[in-house]
This record gives sequence, structure tokens and C-alpha cells, in this order.
Amino acid sequence: MKKTVTIFDSTLRDGAQAEGISFSVEDKLKIVKELDNLGVSYIEAGNPGSNPKDLEFFTRVRQLRLNHSKIAAFGSTRRRDITAAEDKNVESLLTADTQVVVIFGKSWDFHVTDIIKTTLDENLRMIEDTVAYLKSKNREVIFDAEHFFDGYKANPEYAVSTLLSAQKAGADSVCLCDTNGGAFPQEVFEITKLVTEKLSVPVGIHCHNDCGMAVANSVMAVAAGAVCVQGTLIGFGERCGNANLSTIIPNLQLKQNINCLPEGKIQLITGSARFVSEVANLGLSDREPYVGRSAFAHKGGMHVDGVSKSPASFEHIDPELVGNERKVLTSEVSGRSTILSKIKRISPQIEKDSPETEEIMSRLKELEHEGYQFEAAESAFELVIRKHLGKYKPFFELFDFRVIGEYPTAEQGASARATIKIMVDGKTEITAAEGDGPVNALDKALRKALEVFYPSLSEVHLTDYKVRVLDEKSATAAKVRVLIESSDGRESWSTVGVSTDIIQASWIALVDSIEYKLIKDIEHKFKAYL
Amino acid sequence: MKKTVTIFDSTLRDGAQAEGISFSVEDKLKIVKELDNLGVSYIEAGNPGSNPKDLEFFTRVRQLRLNHSKIAAFGSTRRRDITAAEDKNVESLLTADTQVVVIFGKSWDFHVTDIIKTTLDENLRMIEDTVAYLKSKNREVIFDAEHFFDGYKANPEYAVSTLLSAQKAGADSVCLCDTNGGAFPQEVFEITKLVTEKLSVPVGIHCHNDCGMAVANSVMAVAAGAVCVQGTLIGFGERCGNANLSTIIPNLQLKQNINCLPEGKIQLITGSARFVSEVANLGLSDREPYVGRSAFAHKGGMHVDGVSKSPASFEHIDPELVGNERKVLTSEVSGRSTILSKIKRISPQIEKDSPETEEIMSRLKELEHEGYQFEAAESAFELVIRKHLGKYKPFFELFDFRVIGEYPTAEQGASARATIKIMVDGKTEITAAEGDGPVNALDKALRKALEVFYPSLSEVHLTDYKVRVLDEKSATAAKVRVLIESSDGRESWSTVGVSTDIIQASWIALVDSIEYKLIKDIEHKFKAYL
Repeated sequence: MKKTVTIFDSTLRDGAQAEGISFSVEDKLKIVKELDNLGVSYIEAGNPGSNPKDLEFFTRVRQLRLNHSKIAAFGSTRRRDITAAEDKNVESLLTADTQVVVIFGKSWDFHVTDIIKTTLDENLRMIEDTVAYLKSKNREVIFDAEHFFDGYKANPEYAVSTLLSAQKAGADSVCLCDTNGGAFPQEVFEITKLVTEKLSVPVGIHCHNDCGMAVANSVMAVAAGAVCVQGTLIGFGERCGNANLSTIIPNLQLKQNINCLPEGKIQLITGSARFVSEVANLGLSDREPYVGRSAFAHKGGMHVDGVSKSPASFEHIDPELVGNERKVLTSEVSGRSTILSKIKRISPQIEKDSPETEEIMSRLKELEHEGYQFEAAESAFELVIRKHLGKYKPFFELFDFRVIGEYPTAEQGASARATIKIMVDGKTEITAAEGDGPVNALDKALRKALEVFYPSLSEVHLTDYKVRVLDEKSATAAKVRVLIESSDGRESWSTVGVSTDIIQASWIALVDSIEYKLIKDIEHKFKAYL
Repeated sequence: MKKTVTIFDSTLRDGAQAEGISFSVEDKLKIVKELDNLGVSYIEAGNPGSNPKDLEFFTRVRQLRLNHSKIAAFGSTRRRDITAAEDKNVESLLTADTQVVVIFGKSWDFHVTDIIKTTLDENLRMIEDTVAYLKSKNREVIFDAEHFFDGYKANPEYAVSTLLSAQKAGADSVCLCDTNGGAFPQEVFEITKLVTEKLSVPVGIHCHNDCGMAVANSVMAVAAGAVCVQGTLIGFGERCGNANLSTIIPNLQLKQNINCLPEGKIQLITGSARFVSEVANLGLSDREPYVGRSAFAHKGGMHVDGVSKSPASFEHIDPELVGNERKVLTSEVSGRSTILSKIKRISPQIEKDSPETEEIMSRLKELEHEGYQFEAAESAFELVIRKHLGKYKPFFELFDFRVIGEYPTAEQGASARATIKIMVDGKTEITAAEGDGPVNALDKALRKALEVFYPSLSEVHLTDYKVRVLDEKSATAAKVRVLIESSDGRESWSTVGVSTDIIQASWIALVDSIEYKLIKDIEHKFKAYL
């Protein structure tokens, strides 16, 4: 029978410990739905004892109908010298009312004596009592052995006795945690192997990436007998992050023939990874294995040539297996089918060898040569296609704008002022705004003028603004690429502008952003007629 | 005797294959100096056959005096059916005139027959001929066995015979490459072990990160007998990147007691990693093991508490060992010695416990909190120190400036106009200039006004201009950091400015750049009196 490993995602608990991450209850619910759809077995969703906001989440998550995932609450063993029932934090784990409870406890003797300052025996009783109490309340209980590998290296017998205590008390499984992320692959393999031989319950693995080896350590633990992998979908976590599940799942399932996700789900993983990164508002590295935008990008001439002769020559797997795509950065053949699929969304009758396809391809090359990049700005590319196919009409006409920046500034946060004059349907509007720097002032003035005609623009706000200098050697006269991300609360889209003048580049991206929104509004409103 | 592994950096060759990276010759020279100072053994700097720009670099790099690193040129074995001496690309490797040449050749039979389309025997002759020819020209020759692990799995005998051919022809060492990045730690260990037993020359390892295991694979290869690790300092490379040396070096040196860098150098690694990322203008992930800004950051209450009781409880190494620092518990000692050495350059009598040192440390922390970064802008930090120590007097006084950008523009390349009024020694100067965008116009106007008083400024030109948006979520009102690099033809220096207004941020960096130049002029001219 094919080996199976259960996948345990902790993006919402350990992942939320990462610097720069703060999930709202809405964010958490969105991520739960995404992970359930991807098919992970467990979603560890919070620590109701340490975070009261989590209690609202646990109430709301019970209303979701999940198809694949069980929700887990996370907390500590009871404090020393009281009963589990007396411990408020243990109680809050029951209040969360989840199918699964994860209890972490100490397995490193030094932590018992020096950090929580109790005896080795009392620590074992803390584990036993807590597990037994939660089992008596009909929960599935997973025991997370914190610092297990450091503990094992310091005192192997004691470390194992913590696992045996949990097992004796009825834990459904135990998990070996490399909490400080300092373990090496070979030792993870050896220790996991010894442990699985001593236990009758299933063993899991939980790694951190402080030595850059969390993925390898997880894979080695599975080779040694671990049957559950804890991690976070895109590696979020304290310090250097947790084991990255979007790497581990394809490693195990595609390269070692081990079941991790339900049939047909693994090709969703690139989309899920990007979704979670969007919700967290932290960029996903382009270089991310399997799911990054550059994971299957080929730049070197030799590699491009090799891939065109046989993809296996320079690709370790077919990118489609994980829902990603090949990027051949220079070849003329490359990308035609990708681009065609984008054209077809607007004009379904256009084919691969239609002249329009050829023309749009060369327009794209021209724009890329100028410094445009559409990988992160698909909406802008949709506008390029529309303009080329005549499926576009400008929403306003610009007469002129003028931006003034000055020093000393009149007041804080208003170092620039912009005036603008536009026309819509024969009616002109002239207005002005002030802002923090020239681009901010121009952005405000443009919106103010257009909202007179298009009130739905008041929903739109910019969520991201990036600047990249393209030819740095030209110094302050260099070309810049501006990438803007906008949202109307439901959808978000990205647009791009390139110019030697940052105001111009920002203007191009701003106008595209607004026009894209207005086109989507029309599509939505008049869907029936289109 | 302590085991030693040589470190081979390919940031400038394999790293430059990454999407979004484009190094100028100046960038490459800066990175060479940084890597040499860090103490890596080899710097693979380019492929002179495939990139003519690299030839200029190789000419200029010969003029640098390096203390630790040998420069290597990279190229392919000769093409089939000609002699090595007839092959233009092989010839260009000699023209590069480096001490070391790296030759890559095929070791996977499928690549020989299906990609370069020749016989298995001719491929062996291609390896032998090329290595022997380069050895006859007195080069140190490293043979890179491309796709070695895939090749070994397909046809172990043939894969090993390619290494033996290189060894027979006189190669100084061979390197096993996991070109597609698909190998797993256990198999890298086993195959490397078998290979090292069969060869008499030293064996190296070259991994890619497509399975997220390049670091672990490199570490496993070393455990199996590899004595050279190829990678890129911060993991840049095609697709998912190369093995990350800033993770591997501390893994081996601090955790496995294997020499990688010369005595006392490893604490420079965080600074070097950040320097390279700034030059490449690609952000270093905060989560990067050892060198990232969050690598030793503690957010979870329990962890913070544990760390305050005993750092070892939640940290796998002391962050100072790699020149990084703990976050949360803002350690007062960290970085003090680095900063002191910079202070001493200006005021040699100041000591570690002088109040000035303390004050400059806290000023630095304040500035970093605002978004400043001085790793790539030492000149700017020198000005901070000077201002604090009173070893500074402004060179001019600004009354005001005003920048106007407009659309439509009057003419190409002059979309903005700036006016400025300054005073030097009681004399005022008011002037104006036009330029490509607001920053360019302001830059020109400021220089024009100052050259009246300081003619030596006419030698100065900006060689680099970078913009990074710091808090992208604030969109067009976000804070930006501007990094400017200037040169007077002999020396080059970098300055930095931070503001929510890009014009302000650029202004700060421009003024610092000019003042730094004028201070250096004084130092130079009046050295005898100082």
C-alpha cells in the first residue's frame, strides 16, 4: 500500500508568530477555507488561552462546513502543582470546542528545571494529567514535544519518557519538535528512527528553519518513520520560519510517491500559496521552490535550449503538476500559449496563429524591452490586450497636470501639491490636492476629479506601491518601474508604469488601475449583455 | 586536525542568472572586494565566452589586490569534433587571464546523446582535451560535472567515468553538480561517498534549491567527504536559487567545527550578505537563516521570557557569532565594536565606554528605526558620526527649493523644473535647472548652484540611484529609502535618505553625497595640518 503522511498546517498559529504578520478573524477564516480546499488534514488555528481574539475565530469557524480539514486549538500542559481542570488555559482549549487539541510540553530537562522551574517528575505528571483530562472530554489529542531534539541530545531517556507519558495518558499521536531549528538532517533521521521504534502511537515532525534545513529535516523524519508533518503553507513562522509545506508536500508526493493531499489537489498548491501570501500581505519570494514565480524560469541560453529540446533536461518536475508554469525568459516560442489564454478571456475566437496573437506578442516584447513587466501586473496586461483589440475606450481625457514640491514645506505630511484638469463626456473638471510627496498629491487629485463622474472609485484604495530603478547607472535620470496594487475591498489588481520620470511612471500605473476598475464594474453590471 | 572546507562563491556567475539581477562591472568589482574581505576561497566571476561585458570586468579585476580569494572564469568543455585550441569559447577563458578556470561538462548520458547530440566517447574526449589544454596553460582547473546526480542515477558507471576523465587529464578538483536541484539529502550523501572513494582529487558539491534542500544537500555532501562547497552568498541563482553560502558557512563552521573562512571572518557574514543584497537591489528576506533581520527575533511571549532567562533556551547559536543581533531584547553590546572602529577613524581617542559611543549607538538605532540602513552607505554613517562629534560644519545653507513637474511636458527629457536658493559664506546663489523628473531636476539645480563656490564638484557624478519602498501597504504615501552612489573618478561613495516624500529622501542623500566629497577634498588638501 502507498505510504500516507498527514499534513498539519500551523500558518494561523505558529505562522502568526512571524514578524510583520497580523491576521484578522476574516483573514483567518479565508485561510481556513483555502487550506481545507487544498486538502490538508489538520489546521492549527490559534491559542485560545493566550489570545482572546482567537475565541471569536473559534466560534465562527464552527459555522464553516469543511471537507478535508480538522481544526485544532493549541495550548500548553497545565501549570505545575494544580490540576488540569483548575488551569484556565486548559479550560479555554475546551471552550474553543475543536475536534483536535494540540498540547505542548517540555521534553528538554534543562527547560524543565531552568525555564519553568519544576521537577522532572512533576513535568511528566503535567503532561499525563493534561492529556488524560482532554481525552476524557473526547478530544483528539496531539502531544507536541517542545525542543525534543535538543532534549534528546541532552538526556535521551528523559526526552523519550515525556513521549511515553503522553502515550500512556491516551494521546492519539505525538510530535517531535525542533523548536530552536538547530537540528541537522542526519540526527533528525537517527533520533526519529529510535523514537518511532519505542512508541506505539503515530509520530509527527515539527521543524524550524534556523539552519535553512527545515524541509530536509522533515523529509528525513518521514524517511525514518514519521507519519505527520507539521509546518506552515509558505513557511511563515517565528525567526527564520517553520518548515515550508508547499515545498515538503511536492517533495513527498511527487518525488517519493507518498500520499499527502487528496487525489487531484496538489495542482492547487501554487494558487493556495499565493493566496495565503496575499492575505498575509507578505510577498511570496519568486524563488520559492515549486510555487514561486521563478521556480521554473529559464534565463541562460543553454538552459533555454535544453528545455526546448526536452523539459526534463533542466527541470526536476513538470511545473503543471503543482499548478505553476514554465517561464522561458527570452525564447520566442515561450509563453505563446499562456498569452493566448489571456487573449481568449477577452476575445474567445482568437487562435494561436491569428495575426492578433502575433501582434500582441510583439507589443509585449516591445513593452518588456522598455522595462515593463507583467508577471506581477496581469491587469495591466489585460488593458494592453483590450487596447490592441479595440475593446477599450478611454474613461477620461487629461488636459494637463502640474505637481509642485517644495522645501521648506508648509505643513507636515503635505510637502507637495497637484493640480489637474480632465474631461469626461464633454464636461471638464479642474481640481487640486496636497499630499506627502508628488505622487501622493497627484494620486489624490486624480481620484478627486474622477469621483465626480465615477462614484464607485471611492471604494478603490491603493494597497501597495513599489518602485524599482531599472538602469541604475543613469542615476537620477534613470528609468523607473512603478508597480501599484489596488483593491476595492472585494478584488485586488496590479498595474505598472515605466518612465524616466517617477511621476509619469506612477501616473501610467494609476490611470490603468482606475480604468481596470471601471471596466470590471461594467462587466459586472452588464454581464447579461456582453 | 580540524577539517577544512573551501568556499566557492558564484554570485557573479550562477547568481547573475537569476531573474531580476543585472550587475554592472562596478557592481561586480564591489562584490569581489566584499567577498575577498569575507575570505571566501574562490570567486567565480563570469563566463567570458557567453558575455562580452565580462571581458571588461576580467581586465579590471586584475588590478585589484585580493587577500583571500582566487578569481575563476567559467565555461564549457570544447564543442564536439574540434580541438580545444580551436574552440573560441575555450580561448576566451584564457583571455580572461584568471588563476582558476572552471569547466563544466556533461555527466548524464541522456544529455550527451539528446541535448548536445554526440557520442558518449566523444564527450569524454571533450572533457579530457579541454582540461588538459587549460592545464598546459598553467591554470588551476576545476571540472564541474553538470547533472551529476541525475546522471549517476541513470548510468553510474558513465557518470563516474566523466570525473575520471577530468582527473586523468590533470584537473585539480572536480565538483558534483545537482543542476536541476532535484536530489534528496540521503542520496547526495550516498553518491558523494561512493565517488570520493573512487577519486584521488578533491571533490566539491554544487546544489540548487528546487526542492528547498540545497543547504542540507551541501551539508550532507560534506559529511560524505566533499571538501569544497559551491554556492552563492545569499542564494541568488536561476529558478529557485543556488545553495545559500550564508547559511552553509555558519552551519559547518559554528555547528560542525569545520573551517570555512579565515580566523575572525565569520562575524562579517551578516554585513556581507546585506551588502550583496543592496548592490543587487534585491531585498534580503528578513527570515534568512543567520543573516536575516528576523533570524533572532522573538515575538512569542514564552520565547521572549525563555530567552531572557537563558538565550540558549530559544536560540540555536549566539547571534553575535555571525554579526547579527537579537531583536526584542535589544542587546546593548552588539555591534558596538564595529561602530567603535568607525568612530575611531574620525576621533581616535574615543573608547568603547566613552559616552559618545553610547550616544552614537542610540542615534544609529533611532535612524534605523526610521528606515535608514548604513550597511551599503558607510559614507553617510561617517557624516552621522562627524555631526555628532562636532567634526562637521555645513558647506551651504538652503533657503528653499521648489520642484515642478508637468504634463504635457514642454520637451522630451525635461518633464520637470527645479529652482533653488542657497547661501555660502554670506553669498547667496539662486538658480534653476530642468531635468527628467523632479529628482533629476533638483540634482542638477543643486550642483549648478554649488559649483559656483566649490568647482571640484564638477568632477562628481552619480553612478547609481536606488529606491526602495519601505512600508508598501501605505501605497503612494509610503516611506522610501533612496540610496545614491557618487564618484569623482577616483573614489566612490554611497549615501542614503529616508522620507515619505521621494524628493526629500533624494535631497538628503544628495546633500550628504556632496558634503562627503567636500570633506574628503579638505582631508586630502590639508592632510599635513590635521
